[in-house]
Amino acid sequence: MTTTGAGRPRLSTRKRPGATARDEILDAAAEFFTTGGFTTTSTRMIADAVGIRQASLYHHFANKEDLLAALLVETVTSPVAFAQQLSESEEPATVRMYALTWFDAHQLATSRWNLGALYLLPELRTERFEPFRAQRRILMDLYTEFAEDALVQIDPRRDVDIRTAQLPFRLVETVINTRSDVEAESAGTPPSPDVIADAAMRVLGWTGSIDELTSRTTTLIAEYAER
Amino acid sequence: MTTTGAGRPRLSTRKRPGATARDEILDAAAEFFTTGGFTTTSTRMIADAVGIRQASLYHHFANKEDLLAALLVETVTSPVAFAQQLSESEEPATVRMYALTWFDAHQLATSRWNLGALYLLPELRTERFEPFRAQRRILMDLYTEFAEDALVQIDPRRDVDIRTAQLPFRLVETVINTRSDVEAESAGTPPSPDVIADAAMRVLGWTGSIDELTSRTTTLIAEYAER
Repeated sequence: MTTTGAGRPRLSTRKRPGATARDEILDAAAEFFTTGGFTTTSTRMIADAVGIRQASLYHHFANKEDLLAALLVETVTSPVAFAQQLSESEEPATVRMYALTWFDAHQLATSRWNLGALYLLPELRTERFEPFRAQRRILMDLYTEFAEDALVQIDPRRDVDIRTAQLPFRLVETVINTRSDVEAESAGTPPSPDVIADAAMRVLGWTGSIDELTSRTTTLIAEYAER
Repeated sequence: MTTTGAGRPRLSTRKRPGATARDEILDAAAEFFTTGGFTTTSTRMIADAVGIRQASLYHHFANKEDLLAALLVETVTSPVAFAQQLSESEEPATVRMYALTWFDAHQLATSRWNLGALYLLPELRTERFEPFRAQRRILMDLYTEFAEDALVQIDPRRDVDIRTAQLPFRLVETVINTRSDVEAESAGTPPSPDVIADAAMRVLGWTGSIDELTSRTTTLIAEYAER
């Protein structure tokens, strides 16, 4: 029988995906937050959905805010790690830009729950979520750095416009909105990482072939996965 | 002395912008919903902020959901009207596309409250908000139609990819996220309708000058404003 960290026997067999009780709690919280709303979800509802006592949940997370903070940090951890690997590589700026937008759009499009839909909650502006916001700013800054380098690579004579350099990050975030509309009312076509990454390059003025960027990206993502 | 529709004298002089008590109520609700959150706001808080009795508020709106529905519909009313005017015009598809993205990005960037930040609330998936969602789908469909026509105009030999045709609508929505980040933590540069509309055209494959599109857009918006 699986036991929780608190040492209590589980009330029932595993109800949610996840290797540990902590993962199951996070999965249930993610479902409630994205489908019912953060404010209307209680830790009791989450514990019930996992099949554990509320006291066992509190062994892992002090409150709902801790759960939301853990879930949000997860949405930026892997793109930040991949972007930092790219940043240290010798790849041309256009390859770094294409690889990051493709990787991040792909993870936002395929994650089990559309957690990015919670990014605009006014609740996230409190001190409790500063660690998440700090990680997200790091990601945003890496995007902007790659975009500025790519703008210079594509057309060295052009003045770099910071508002254009901000667009690849924002284009990737559109995966969240598209996914939300598709899930809520079957409106529109699911987001495609290929189309998003292609669009990010065109916005920066790239008019060449995308093929050389995609083949390098495949290699870079394979290297990242093997680390 | 100004009186509410319910005929009660106002408790105090006007506290909020708005030509009528109804407008003042909407303005206060928009501030609370976008800065504190929808769930944590009560009609009592809104009535107090306007300086009216709760009973007077109920004369205009039956509940919080009615207030949110009215505010959300307002965010799509003018872009839908402008898009329909463009749809009936003889303008080339690229002009229609540029004009709509510029107009809509501009209104989202300059509206008093960033109400688009509420679009992803799970609460909006209920029946109560179907009229808003229907209007938003009409707008989305007009965007897609203009984008498909523009793709054909720009390169008649290319197959039209619906996922690319969806991007101008999504690019305009990024105004909401950019604005939210700038307001919440002074991160990034405020959104620019020029940059967004330019990006929408590049995503569709436009590599020509933007000048001819901007000058037509200025005329079209002036005509719309004079209707």
